[in-house]
Amino acid sequence: MYELTISLRQGDRIPLYEQIYGYIRNEIREGRISSGEKLPSTRMLSRHLDVSRSTVELAYEQLLSEGYIESRPYRGYYAAQIEGLYQIHPVRKVGKADKKRNRAQYLYDFTPNGVDLNSFPYNTWRRLSRECLVDDRAELFRLGCPQGEAGLRSAISAYLHQARGVNCSPEQIVVGAGNDYLLMLLCAVLGTGHRVALENPTYKQAYRMFKNLSFDICTVDMDQKGMRVDVLDKTEADLAFVMPSHQYPLGTVMPIRRRMELLQWSVKKQDRYIIEDDYDSEFRYKGKPIPALQGYDAEGRVIYIGTFSKSIAPAIRMSYMVMPESVCEMYHRRCGFINSTVSKVDQMILQKFIEDGHYERHLNKMRALYRNRHDILLAELKEMGTDFSISGENAGVHLLLHFGSGRTEEEMIRLAAANGVRVYGLSEYYVDGASPSENAVILLGYANMDEKKIKEAVHLLKKAWYGNA
Amino acid sequence: MYELTISLRQGDRIPLYEQIYGYIRNEIREGRISSGEKLPSTRMLSRHLDVSRSTVELAYEQLLSEGYIESRPYRGYYAAQIEGLYQIHPVRKVGKADKKRNRAQYLYDFTPNGVDLNSFPYNTWRRLSRECLVDDRAELFRLGCPQGEAGLRSAISAYLHQARGVNCSPEQIVVGAGNDYLLMLLCAVLGTGHRVALENPTYKQAYRMFKNLSFDICTVDMDQKGMRVDVLDKTEADLAFVMPSHQYPLGTVMPIRRRMELLQWSVKKQDRYIIEDDYDSEFRYKGKPIPALQGYDAEGRVIYIGTFSKSIAPAIRMSYMVMPESVCEMYHRRCGFINSTVSKVDQMILQKFIEDGHYERHLNKMRALYRNRHDILLAELKEMGTDFSISGENAGVHLLLHFGSGRTEEEMIRLAAANGVRVYGLSEYYVDGASPSENAVILLGYANMDEKKIKEAVHLLKKAWYGNA
Repeated sequence: MYELTISLRQGDRIPLYEQIYGYIRNEIREGRISSGEKLPSTRMLSRHLDVSRSTVELAYEQLLSEGYIESRPYRGYYAAQIEGLYQIHPVRKVGKADKKRNRAQYLYDFTPNGVDLNSFPYNTWRRLSRECLVDDRAELFRLGCPQGEAGLRSAISAYLHQARGVNCSPEQIVVGAGNDYLLMLLCAVLGTGHRVALENPTYKQAYRMFKNLSFDICTVDMDQKGMRVDVLDKTEADLAFVMPSHQYPLGTVMPIRRRMELLQWSVKKQDRYIIEDDYDSEFRYKGKPIPALQGYDAEGRVIYIGTFSKSIAPAIRMSYMVMPESVCEMYHRRCGFINSTVSKVDQMILQKFIEDGHYERHLNKMRALYRNRHDILLAELKEMGTDFSISGENAGVHLLLHFGSGRTEEEMIRLAAANGVRVYGLSEYYVDGASPSENAVILLGYANMDEKKIKEAVHLLKKAWYGNA
Repeated sequence: MYELTISLRQGDRIPLYEQIYGYIRNEIREGRISSGEKLPSTRMLSRHLDVSRSTVELAYEQLLSEGYIESRPYRGYYAAQIEGLYQIHPVRKVGKADKKRNRAQYLYDFTPNGVDLNSFPYNTWRRLSRECLVDDRAELFRLGCPQGEAGLRSAISAYLHQARGVNCSPEQIVVGAGNDYLLMLLCAVLGTGHRVALENPTYKQAYRMFKNLSFDICTVDMDQKGMRVDVLDKTEADLAFVMPSHQYPLGTVMPIRRRMELLQWSVKKQDRYIIEDDYDSEFRYKGKPIPALQGYDAEGRVIYIGTFSKSIAPAIRMSYMVMPESVCEMYHRRCGFINSTVSKVDQMILQKFIEDGHYERHLNKMRALYRNRHDILLAELKEMGTDFSISGENAGVHLLLHFGSGRTEEEMIRLAAANGVRVYGLSEYYVDGASPSENAVILLGYANMDEKKIKEAVHLLKKAWYGNA
C-alpha cells in the first residue's frame, strides 16, 4: 500500500479536503502512485493526518468522481489506470484579436454605416427597462417563444403594415439578434443547394454571409432601376437578394415596373424566393416612404428582412424576418426548435417602445435630423465644386459623388485622408472581381456628422480635392 | 391626355398630395391610365383641383420615385409601362403557430429543463441595468465587438479558470445568444464536410441542430463512463460532442481515464475536435465541481461551450464558446465579420454581475437551494418504493429512476399523468432509432419544484405507481 506523506496547511485558503485531494491526484498523475496500487482507508488516513474522517471521505469522493481512484467493494480504494495522461499547462495566448491595425487618425469620418446616437432616447429606454424589470416577472426570464414574443411580433406586424405596406400576420414573423443571424437562420430554413443572386455592387456583409453559408452565389448587374431581371433570368439562381427601397451602396430606388418584373421572375419556377432587405427605408426625404416589395407579393415569394439597428441603435441587436406561408412551414418543420436569440426583457422594452408611440416619435425626430444634415451636406457640396454629380440622395443616410474628370478613387480617398477626412470608395462594394468605371465614385455618409462637422469636413475636402479653401 | 376627375376630401386624415398620388396610382394600376399616356402638368392639375402646385408636385414625385410615372425632359409626365401588375391583397394568415396542442393539465411537472426563477436576483439585475443605462453612454449603443465585449470576455475567462479549470484567454472566447446560436456559428466556423459523433442517448436539441446544419451524424454507445472511445475510434467522425461533467440525460460523469482516451482520440488525426458542452456543471452536490475536459487539453483539441441559461435564467440568452487557437484562426478568417448576437447593455449587466461577485453569490444560493430539493427528493423516493435504483444524482438538477420489475416507461408516465404528475421517459432522448432496455427509466427534474411540491408530487407518484398513498 502506498504511504502518503502530505504536509497539510491548517487555516489555509484551500480547504483541507482539497489539499488531500490535490496531493493524491498529483501523485497519481505523475506516476508516484501507480495504477492498481491500494490507497489507505479513510479511517487510517484520517488518523495518520489527524483530520476528521469526513474530510478524507470528501477528498476520496472527489478523486472517485473524477476517476483518479476506484472503489472495490469490501476491499477499499485503488489508484485507477491512467495512461498517457496529459499534463495541464496554460494554453498559449492567442494574440490575433490584440493586434489592432495602426489606423490613420481622422478628424472627420463620412462613414455610410453611421447612426446618430446622441439622439438615442436614453430616458425613455431606461424608464421602459425599469418598468419591465419588476419583481413579479419571473415569466420574463423563462424561455420564450422561438419566433420571439407574440406581443412584439404583433407590434412589428402593425408597424410594418402601416409604415411599409407589408402584409403579414404576427405568425409570419421571426425576431432575431441582427440581420447576420437572420440570414444564418434563413439558410437553415431553406436548406442547402440554393444559388443566390446579388446585385453588384452590394452590401458586403450579406455577400460574405451567403458565401460563408455555402450558398452558390452569382452577381447580377444593375442599371438605374436596380437589379436587371433580364440578366437574372439567365442565371441559375433561385434566390434573389435585393434592397428595392434604397439599394446599398448605390441608393437606387427600384421603380414599380422593375419590382413587378422581379415578382414575375419569382413565380416562373417553383421554390424561387426574393429576399428583400429593407434596411433603412425609414429615412426618405421626398414624399412618403416607398412601400416594400413584400406588399405587392400576392404569391408568397418575398422574404422580408428589416432591422432596428439603423432606426434605433446598432447595439440593441434586434431584427425581424417576415416569411411567406411556404417558408413559415419550412421554418416550423426544420427550425422551429431553435431558441430565440433575443432576451425577453429586450423584446418587451422594444414592444412598449413601439406600442406607446415612442418609436414613431423617434423616427420622426431622426428623419428631421438626418434631413437637415442631408440638406446642409448638399448645399455645402454645391459650393465645393462642379466636376461631380450626386446620386442616391433621396433616401437613407449617405449619398454618392460621381467624378467625371478622370480622377481616380484612390487619389480622392488619399487626398481626403491627408486632410484628416475619411471618405469611402464605391469600388469596395463590388464583388466577384467586378469594378466600377475608372472615374472616382465617393460615398459620403452623414448620420454621424452634425451640421458644424459637415461644414468643416466639406471645407477640408475642398482644400484636399481642389487645392483651395 | 388623360383627364383626371379626383374628388379630394379637404381636411381628411390623408393629406391632399397622398389622395392625388393614390388616385393616379390606382388609375395606372387598373389600366384606366394606359402606359405612355400623358398626364396633366403640375400647373394644370393644381388649377383643375384647386390645390397648391407644390401639393401636386409632391404627388408626382412620389409616383415618379415608385416608378408609376416617368418624366420626359421638356415634355412632361407619362404613365410608365407596367405589365402584369400584381394586385395587393392581404396575405392569408398562417395559423400554424396559433394551434396550441391541447395539453393535459398537470399539477406537478418534474421537467428536467427547469430553472428556479423565484430566486432570480431581480433587484440586483434591475440596479445593474439602471447603472448601465446612464445618459452619456452612447458607446453602449454603438456596434460592438463581434466576439462580445472585451470586459465581459475577461470576466468569463477569469470565472472559467477559477470555477471550471478552463485555461483560456479572453481572445479565445465568443459570446453568443444561446447554445443553439453558438452551434450554428461553430458550424459556419468549421465549414462543411464534418461528421459529428454524439452520445446516445443525448441532448436532443444539439442532435437536431447538427442534423439541421447538414452535419453527418453518427451515434456512439455509452457505458457507465460515458462515450465509448473504442466505438468512436471505429467511426469516421472527426468531431465528438460530449458532456463529460454531467451527461444529459444520463447524468454520467466521465472519469479521468475516459477523458484522457478521448483526448488521445482527438490527436490521432489532424483536425479532430471535441465539443464539450458544460451546460450545468455549476451544480454539484458532492465535493467540488469536476474540472472541465478543456483544462486537460494541451493540444488545442477541445471547443468548450457554456451557458448562463441554467445558472442565471434561460431568457437572458447568453452563452459562450472557448475556441482553441486553430479554431480561433478559422473563426477570424471565416466568421470574424459576423456581428455579435447579444446587446451591449446585456453584456455590460452580466459583466458587472460577475465582477461584483453577484454571480458567485447567486450560484452559491442556487446550489444550496437545489441541494436541498435534491436531498428531499431522494429521501421521499426512498419512502416511495424499492423496485428501482437511482442514478445521476450527484450533480445537475435531475435524476433517473431505473425500474427493474418489467414495468414499461409508457405505463409509468401514463399512471403519473393520470394523477396529475408529469414525468419524463429516457427513451425520448435516444436518437437513430436506438432504444433503451425495456424496463422503465424515468427522469425527474427538481429545479422547478419547492420542498412542499416535491413531497406532494412524490406522494401522488406513490399512489400512481404503487396504488397506495
